[in-house]
Amino acid sequence: MNPDIRQERENATFNSEVLTNILDGDAEKTRRRREIEALVINDPDFQHEDLNFLSRSERYDAALKKSALMFTKLRDYGISDPEEIYYYKCIVKKNNHEALGLHFAMFVPTLNSQCSPEQCDKWLPLTDTLEVFGTYAQTELGHGTHLRRLETTATYDPSTQEFVLNSPTVTSIKWWAGGLGKTSNHAIVLAQLYTRGQCHGLHGFIVPIRCMKTHQPLPGVVVGDIGPKFGFDEVDNGFLKLENVRIPRENMLMKYSKVEPDGTYLKPPSDKLTYGTMVFIRSMIVGESARALSKACTIAIRYSVVRHQSELRPGEPEPQILDYQAQQYKLFPLLATAYAFTFVGQYMNEMYHRITGDINQGDFSELPELHALAAGLKAFSTWTANAGIEVCRMACGGHGYSRCSSLPDIYVTFTATCTYEGENTVMMLQTARYLVKSYRQAREGHRLAGIVSYLNEPWQRVQARPASSRPAVVDLNDLASLVEAYKLRAARLVEVAAKSLQGELQRSSSREDPWNSSSIELIRASEAHCHYVVVKLFAAKLSEISDTAVHSALNSLVLLYALHGIANNSGDFLQADLLSVPQLSQVTQRIKALLAEIRPNAVTLVDAFDYRDEMLNSVLGRYDGNVYENMFEWSKRSPLNRTEVHESYNKYMKPLQSKL
Amino acid sequence: MNPDIRQERENATFNSEVLTNILDGDAEKTRRRREIEALVINDPDFQHEDLNFLSRSERYDAALKKSALMFTKLRDYGISDPEEIYYYKCIVKKNNHEALGLHFAMFVPTLNSQCSPEQCDKWLPLTDTLEVFGTYAQTELGHGTHLRRLETTATYDPSTQEFVLNSPTVTSIKWWAGGLGKTSNHAIVLAQLYTRGQCHGLHGFIVPIRCMKTHQPLPGVVVGDIGPKFGFDEVDNGFLKLENVRIPRENMLMKYSKVEPDGTYLKPPSDKLTYGTMVFIRSMIVGESARALSKACTIAIRYSVVRHQSELRPGEPEPQILDYQAQQYKLFPLLATAYAFTFVGQYMNEMYHRITGDINQGDFSELPELHALAAGLKAFSTWTANAGIEVCRMACGGHGYSRCSSLPDIYVTFTATCTYEGENTVMMLQTARYLVKSYRQAREGHRLAGIVSYLNEPWQRVQARPASSRPAVVDLNDLASLVEAYKLRAARLVEVAAKSLQGELQRSSSREDPWNSSSIELIRASEAHCHYVVVKLFAAKLSEISDTAVHSALNSLVLLYALHGIANNSGDFLQADLLSVPQLSQVTQRIKALLAEIRPNAVTLVDAFDYRDEMLNSVLGRYDGNVYENMFEWSKRSPLNRTEVHESYNKYMKPLQSKL
Repeated sequence: MNPDIRQERENATFNSEVLTNILDGDAEKTRRRREIEALVINDPDFQHEDLNFLSRSERYDAALKKSALMFTKLRDYGISDPEEIYYYKCIVKKNNHEALGLHFAMFVPTLNSQCSPEQCDKWLPLTDTLEVFGTYAQTELGHGTHLRRLETTATYDPSTQEFVLNSPTVTSIKWWAGGLGKTSNHAIVLAQLYTRGQCHGLHGFIVPIRCMKTHQPLPGVVVGDIGPKFGFDEVDNGFLKLENVRIPRENMLMKYSKVEPDGTYLKPPSDKLTYGTMVFIRSMIVGESARALSKACTIAIRYSVVRHQSELRPGEPEPQILDYQAQQYKLFPLLATAYAFTFVGQYMNEMYHRITGDINQGDFSELPELHALAAGLKAFSTWTANAGIEVCRMACGGHGYSRCSSLPDIYVTFTATCTYEGENTVMMLQTARYLVKSYRQAREGHRLAGIVSYLNEPWQRVQARPASSRPAVVDLNDLASLVEAYKLRAARLVEVAAKSLQGELQRSSSREDPWNSSSIELIRASEAHCHYVVVKLFAAKLSEISDTAVHSALNSLVLLYALHGIANNSGDFLQADLLSVPQLSQVTQRIKALLAEIRPNAVTLVDAFDYRDEMLNSVLGRYDGNVYENMFEWSKRSPLNRTEVHESYNKYMKPLQSKL
Repeated sequence: MNPDIRQERENATFNSEVLTNILDGDAEKTRRRREIEALVINDPDFQHEDLNFLSRSERYDAALKKSALMFTKLRDYGISDPEEIYYYKCIVKKNNHEALGLHFAMFVPTLNSQCSPEQCDKWLPLTDTLEVFGTYAQTELGHGTHLRRLETTATYDPSTQEFVLNSPTVTSIKWWAGGLGKTSNHAIVLAQLYTRGQCHGLHGFIVPIRCMKTHQPLPGVVVGDIGPKFGFDEVDNGFLKLENVRIPRENMLMKYSKVEPDGTYLKPPSDKLTYGTMVFIRSMIVGESARALSKACTIAIRYSVVRHQSELRPGEPEPQILDYQAQQYKLFPLLATAYAFTFVGQYMNEMYHRITGDINQGDFSELPELHALAAGLKAFSTWTANAGIEVCRMACGGHGYSRCSSLPDIYVTFTATCTYEGENTVMMLQTARYLVKSYRQAREGHRLAGIVSYLNEPWQRVQARPASSRPAVVDLNDLASLVEAYKLRAARLVEVAAKSLQGELQRSSSREDPWNSSSIELIRASEAHCHYVVVKLFAAKLSEISDTAVHSALNSLVLLYALHGIANNSGDFLQADLLSVPQLSQVTQRIKALLAEIRPNAVTLVDAFDYRDEMLNSVLGRYDGNVYENMFEWSKRSPLNRTEVHESYNKYMKPLQSKL
């Protein structure tokens, strides 16, 4: 082990294993997770060349191989608990994705939730044996967010009892679905249902796209890979153009709505029933933000104690770059954010399962709150983590730019979350809609419950109180006071947004333009709300931690998270009189003190995330810190080094030299 | 042409050609640039498959081919003016890089500036005929910023009159140099010079690394490609390990320092002589920031008028996404920034050439200012453009994530500028050093000239004046007042940094720790200084523009740039009493009004950058706006679509199905 990194571990003030157990849930869960990870790490079938050295076609090949292996091995091991499957998949995928991901994540669950019992009996056994494997084709070339305008049509023909599917325009071509290009032989296609001359809106249809024997595209089906992307090289995101493709009436998903043989359309009993999956995936993305950012922090912080550079005192050896305040100021707030998002992700997971239980009991009351929270936090956490990964990469200097750091891979894979499952700006505006609605309800005298209950007392009323009974400016040393300040900031910005909306409404005749003209304020309100929720949940989690050494280490992180947010949004806090001007320089001083407190624990704090080297796949982030010799070894395997003289030398340079 | 984008062009309030001429310098320069670009566009030799569909080895091959072609064609056309060569290279490279770039940008210029006349006579003709083509190997695996600690040694052996070069450790292996891995047969190697048992510090040596006939590595030379990176796929950044490699004494660069045959070392007359190239490249990077960001804005803004989504008023057609305030708020401040950086880049170019002229006359007086400005603006502009490109990419939704948008390529190529030629944080601290030094000089009664002259009157004194004679809070409608506010903010933050440093100095015994402990404030001071310089230069450029329609369009951009910066840093302005709390909501209102003013001109403002489709290489950014049909065509060419059934299906899925 590199002596610098060993020294770091010896300097820590707490036991990383205790914190790992807290992150996993308990010691038994840590043990089981590691046991499952070891199954993959020790399995020779999963060994392969670094994907960075492969062509895209080879990467797809490797991913399909791993997906197929995973499928059989999970069966053989008898692993069926979703959490355990997740552990297994994570260590197989590393920083990349599965080729068959959508089959398990969308195709089968959608069949499960939207097929009638007879349909389930027919299709599910076929998906079990992988005779049928599929994807979920919703987005079209010209249509994403606004589902109602999808153009694909499914027109019922009672004479043959079939639906005829068509992509009537270029913009209607299905686009982006993972596994659609080359892998799947079926797709659930969302299309506008026409029967008896009437359009009944979007419905799902099971469409065979490739022959189950030859895997050739079926007649009328134009299907293929959409081409290289920023990341997701191993996934064949696809296009699908349907030209008079006929499917049996029974291939419409008929649990809720139906088309009868004669073409009669039967409506679904409720709209809310398809709400769940989307909210679930958004909730899970908060955890993915934590995961991606904590990986990036692990790599950058470990490398920053191995790397030495420049000098602090003339003549002395080059210090570790983590001793530079500027480096700490880049990385430690992100480390704090990674912890914050980890806990918020766990909270969202628990909230989701609790509310799903309620929904199964017929109680939908908390669904709007969950929906709003999942939307906003999905956007807030992915934007933050996205920018943070790049800060980590650049904090590693030139070497962060090498693919051997894995930081480019982590970034390009993760950044897609800002766009998919609800584009982030759209998500922020959805949360804003809920906030403004809640604010209005409170103004109308309704008593709000849950996370928006702080809107019961609008900011204006807080402001109007005599100074003596008003909350004083924030106490920078008191976490509860910091949480309170974030709350009041959110309350104020929700009010600003609501008032902007009201002002625009009075100036304008339509109801929609004012919404658009207040977008800036609405998004800021959502951000402030999410920021408050994160600070609040992070502080709440801290109070549950009994190990005093871990508590103390995390306490520094919570405070740093809160104060760094205040420093970066100081205008909001000053404007709201939550902070005085002299306090602002105290914020900087407190931040500096916290950076110094965190410094000796930094490596142990990232160790506690417990990413195996095989998972990180990063030469810079190696647990043993032996960075340089391994970079050299990695580079020698570069495909360009397969021959000493690249063929292009003889093709271009030789002739050029002889010409001149 | 897509009717939406045609309509946009008809709506513009100014003539894009007039603005293009301003950007180029004059109409004749525009004409000549287009003429040169057409040479490449119409040249069948330069046609090739989209690089995104090629493997890395194929990309390197294609790049080397283009470099070789370019070399001969520029000779054949007789193009020798540096600006014209730049036009030609830009359109050849598109969003990527040259394989032979370092030969022309570093190897030959270094020979020119650091060879003795006899050395020039020997080497330059060989570089002309490309018998010798080389690179510049400075950075080592373990050493970047801090040059003095480079470990490579060159030990003089008087018995054979040779230098013996060695890489004594793993960390001393030369790393990163472009063209080093496979292309070059020579390298200028920076090494610690030892003679007569004494180390004389870093010197440059011309080291043959590959046989000029066979291109095989020479004995003792371990050379290769460092492996795949985030971008720069077409460049063979390399490693170089030297094991007792002997070169003749005459291969040391001897214009300034010398080693005589008996091993006597002669010192260079001055240290400043090698200062120039570095400053030049940093100055040029400001222009590159403008270029990368303006390309990204062109793509995102054109796509945003073609793309329709959701609804503003129920029942009406889906609006263009550029009609959403949230989209304008993302893109227009970046468009303003792209213009700002374009003008600042031109200013840096002019300043560099003026000061280089002075230096050639023996006048070094302005060099420190240029050095400090180039460092800070390099960091400020690259960080801003870097984040901005990603905002543009994500503003294109999912399609921005496709390689067909070219936004991923623009990003991965550009982001390296944040790290190379001086890591950005290091650059910010260099500028801060100059600012603090200037501040102290002013306090000691020296009268500062140039861009830091605003420090002649420290902020404290401004504050101490009676309120009546103090500058009032900013006038949000007056550009001069906004520039003044940025100036006072910078003055204040420089003072805060200087005082922090002073405070730390009083508390501490060493002189270096205080510097480290004040990094946060020092970097903020640099940022505020650079921000002020950019606002000031943008405003100054505006005043030179005589065409009233163009003036008016750019005026909106300057105001937006200034006000957006105030909104995003409102804490600084509030804290300094440059802004009152009620004004802050006026800032938002003004910004909204400016977004609406800019909206009709947005497409024409990006058209004025005049990027040919062949240069942008972006399906989303096409001039004609025919996005969707061309995305479909592009996707069909994806290598995964070469066969209908990918071979992996038969390898993995078939056996799996039969097993289950």
